[in-house]
Amino acid sequence: MKDVQNEKDPRMVPLKKVGIKDLHWPLKVILKEDGYQSTVAQISCSVDLHREKRGIHMSRFIEVLNKLEVITPQIFEEILDDLIEIMEAKRAHLEIHFPYFIWKESPVSRKKSPLKVDCFVEAEKEKNFSFKIGVRTPVHTLCPCSKEISDYGAHNQRAFVEITVKTRKFIWFEDLVEIAEKNASSPLYTLLKRPDEKFVTEKAYENPRFVEDVARDVALELEKDPRITWYRVYVESMESIHNHNAFACVEKGDFVLEG
Amino acid sequence: MKDVQNEKDPRMVPLKKVGIKDLHWPLKVILKEDGYQSTVAQISCSVDLHREKRGIHMSRFIEVLNKLEVITPQIFEEILDDLIEIMEAKRAHLEIHFPYFIWKESPVSRKKSPLKVDCFVEAEKEKNFSFKIGVRTPVHTLCPCSKEISDYGAHNQRAFVEITVKTRKFIWFEDLVEIAEKNASSPLYTLLKRPDEKFVTEKAYENPRFVEDVARDVALELEKDPRITWYRVYVESMESIHNHNAFACVEKGDFVLEG
Amino acid sequence: MKDVQNEKDPRMVPLKKVGIKDLHWPLKVILKEDGYQSTVAQISCSVDLHREKRGIHMSRFIEVLNKLEVITPQIFEEILDDLIEIMEAKRAHLEIHFPYFIWKESPVSRKKSPLKVDCFVEAEKEKNFSFKIGVRTPVHTLCPCSKEISDYGAHNQRAFVEITVKTRKFIWFEDLVEIAEKNASSPLYTLLKRPDEKFVTEKAYENPRFVEDVARDVALELEKDPRITWYRVYVESMESIHNHNAFACVEKGDFVLEG
Amino acid sequence: MKDVQNEKDPRMVPLKKVGIKDLHWPLKVILKEDGYQSTVAQISCSVDLHREKRGIHMSRFIEVLNKLEVITPQIFEEILDDLIEIMEAKRAHLEIHFPYFIWKESPVSRKKSPLKVDCFVEAEKEKNFSFKIGVRTPVHTLCPCSKEISDYGAHNQRAFVEITVKTRKFIWFEDLVEIAEKNASSPLYTLLKRPDEKFVTEKAYENPRFVEDVARDVALELEKDPRITWYRVYVESMESIHNHNAFACVEKGDFVLEG
Repeated sequence: MKDVQNEKDPRMVPLKKVGIKDLHWPLKVILKEDGYQSTVAQISCSVDLHREKRGIHMSRFIEVLNKLEVITPQIFEEILDDLIEIMEAKRAHLEIHFPYFIWKESPVSRKKSPLKVDCFVEAEKEKNFSFKIGVRTPVHTLCPCSKEISDYGAHNQRAFVEITVKTRKFIWFEDLVEIAEKNASSPLYTLLKRPDEKFVTEKAYENPRFVEDVARDVALELEKDPRITWYRVYVESMESIHNHNAFACVEKGDFVLEG
Repeated sequence: MKDVQNEKDPRMVPLKKVGIKDLHWPLKVILKEDGYQSTVAQISCSVDLHREKRGIHMSRFIEVLNKLEVITPQIFEEILDDLIEIMEAKRAHLEIHFPYFIWKESPVSRKKSPLKVDCFVEAEKEKNFSFKIGVRTPVHTLCPCSKEISDYGAHNQRAFVEITVKTRKFIWFEDLVEIAEKNASSPLYTLLKRPDEKFVTEKAYENPRFVEDVARDVALELEKDPRITWYRVYVESMESIHNHNAFACVEKGDFVLEG
Repeated sequence: MKDVQNEKDPRMVPLKKVGIKDLHWPLKVILKEDGYQSTVAQISCSVDLHREKRGIHMSRFIEVLNKLEVITPQIFEEILDDLIEIMEAKRAHLEIHFPYFIWKESPVSRKKSPLKVDCFVEAEKEKNFSFKIGVRTPVHTLCPCSKEISDYGAHNQRAFVEITVKTRKFIWFEDLVEIAEKNASSPLYTLLKRPDEKFVTEKAYENPRFVEDVARDVALELEKDPRITWYRVYVESMESIHNHNAFACVEKGDFVLEG
Repeated sequence: MKDVQNEKDPRMVPLKKVGIKDLHWPLKVILKEDGYQSTVAQISCSVDLHREKRGIHMSRFIEVLNKLEVITPQIFEEILDDLIEIMEAKRAHLEIHFPYFIWKESPVSRKKSPLKVDCFVEAEKEKNFSFKIGVRTPVHTLCPCSKEISDYGAHNQRAFVEITVKTRKFIWFEDLVEIAEKNASSPLYTLLKRPDEKFVTEKAYENPRFVEDVARDVALELEKDPRITWYRVYVESMESIHNHNAFACVEKGDFVLEG
């Protein structure tokens, strides 16, 4: 059976990335508090393509991904090494996105319920291995301007904080969620009884934040964390008085901490 | 050239709907204040299929849709009549969705800006012609419970009101948008200067509404409008203290006005 | 603390549905071959609202949903009964959607890989309990007309078959996937080696199907299944020669089997 | 009225981007063949934020965008200059996405119909003005491997080619669509009669292309075009035998043309 992908390509055009996308895959995430959480990931995976090769054997991505049962940096590097070897490539890339549940207690009644956050991991290997993790955490923001200029009330809304980091030591998704929630007007909860709702409403009113405020405070916290060698913070709010969203973002290197 | 679609089908299974979906089409909407607005619609179009016919000629949908340049009930009925004739069908169905801009003045500074709403039209012909129009209008809702139980503040959020109606007389999309906005805690605006933001913040605080409240008040207004013979109201809010949405809906016939 | 939702509502407008949407929830599905599969569901849940009550306590949906760990008809009915009691409602509705993996062998090389299908369950209780399950299965369709009129080749594409059923006896998601795949031009696979790709390509070419054909053959098979008391079949193909999709649908009751 | 955004920020953290997203806006595109086409764009717009300023006045984005009626490089630069001045920023960014219709003749019957493509423009100004345009064009790809190894048939599917370019001379969206279509197995059409369908089916079969082939041939063509100073080509196909997609991409600078 002829191997068309293996034909010598006369065009001499190397490709930056060739791969597969929107592949769904069942996997497990290690929990901070012991044990595993099962989830369903969406995967994108690619390699570069040498200028003399016509194509990639797509099936090999799937064969290599069979190793992906639990998320760890080690597994990601192994998969990328396998891809580089099997595909005769110089560079490989693997990116996964998945929902993850944080079991949170409501602030007053102490009732537990699961809050879904959106996690992702992006790994690349060329000479070096690069491994980023991230979480998009839904939060609550209350507008400082609206509060200041109004006789009563203040517009507020659901927003999300997306934190992406490279670390030199292990960091949990839970830790990033905590940083996001701490710097918003209030965290979100799936289950709130009335005393909880009162608490959350008042807390947000006492704690007004622009997306700019959230982005800056999260960045400052990440900047000071010795485990983190690179980060990007992106905050977006579904403005409740507009039909468009507001956003702010900042990346490691955009500023230098003084003092 | 053989006509496979026209083969006699031995299975004797009539089909309820056969058609095309996710077709994009440029068209014009007549404005309440004179003139036209150009937009881009997403179209779904279908007919029933007789049990003895193997298939539909998909290209005929497109040929018939060439008539669709301006939205009017007459054009929709003509298109459905054409489809019924050309396809030798008993029933035809046409549904379109499109963005539409309402130019609104901000409440204090009187600055104009366009607010996008999502309109739709659904027409069906069997023996009778049925024509529904609808609008999904983004609005602002402020929670009455949160306001009542909290010492200050109240959670609020972006929501939308979707109104669908059958009418005996012409009704403008603009009229439905107005009904939706009037019964929310506040309308939304694309452009708000600070005096406008103060106005909107305070207005919403003075005017707290559950999705249940909005659904009921819109329904009462539609119930009393002599032009409207059928309606459905659907209200959904992106709750700002949760990561899930709340909704309420009510349809003509769910209750009878008294007195 | 005042209970605003419990206020007597003066408008006397009952609501058809009041509830929550886009709630994410971790749960387990019982496998046909022993054991469980973990997944992440998206939930919509609602009750009707009496005309004299102002609102629903949204938190109660979450409290009741805490029971939802494994999908069974019994659990769904218990949840709906609880909602009706706690909410003092006459009717309750629960709908969930979730990805589910079928481990399939490729047709020649017999390599196993997971194929994601989209499952859903919709349950309602008023006086009676109604329970529907469904699966959207991705498949391959090859156009009979294109094959017939062309000297070589035939356009083909990814499509999906959505089957929804009410049953009098238990039916597995796996059974519905099998019915969908059997009646398409070919099933899809996540992992195909070259001999598999040859097999699938030739099989599809030998087995051309319009969306109309798939819808009819699936309907006939469901019609003859004594377990199934109601069904709806919806087939949609991402036509590879157009930028729009084709679809066909048929429901129980649209025809009567003869003979 | 206090100006909270204008407060001096003590954190000393400059922000890379602060802006608005998902704003919808009506506008006009100049046609290659005389005249204008009206469309509806989705806009994202941002500036950097000085470390001593607390926030951005979001309303100013809208006021400046009021200039945006027709897409031209000049208007984009004016808008960015205005933003930089009004916001006292060093850098501004504007990105828009919109559907655009190409009226195409079917290849044999010469029937005209509109094909929707997705266009975008991305402009940035810091010291220099950077202006990129792009189009995502839906096309048809037929797998060379499947054709080669199978006794008959070949799997094929809808795919898209996304071309983004920087140019030193004006280039039309129509030109980029043409380059994308020419290098696929076949273009797509909204309206195809049977002789057209035969033509397209056979043409695609005679012209099998991997996503790798399409990416390379498009890149070669852009590389040779003297107007184009930078490009990125991204090709993605909704593989008809899998439930995942395949993709390939290449950017200016990934290779050097020889000879």
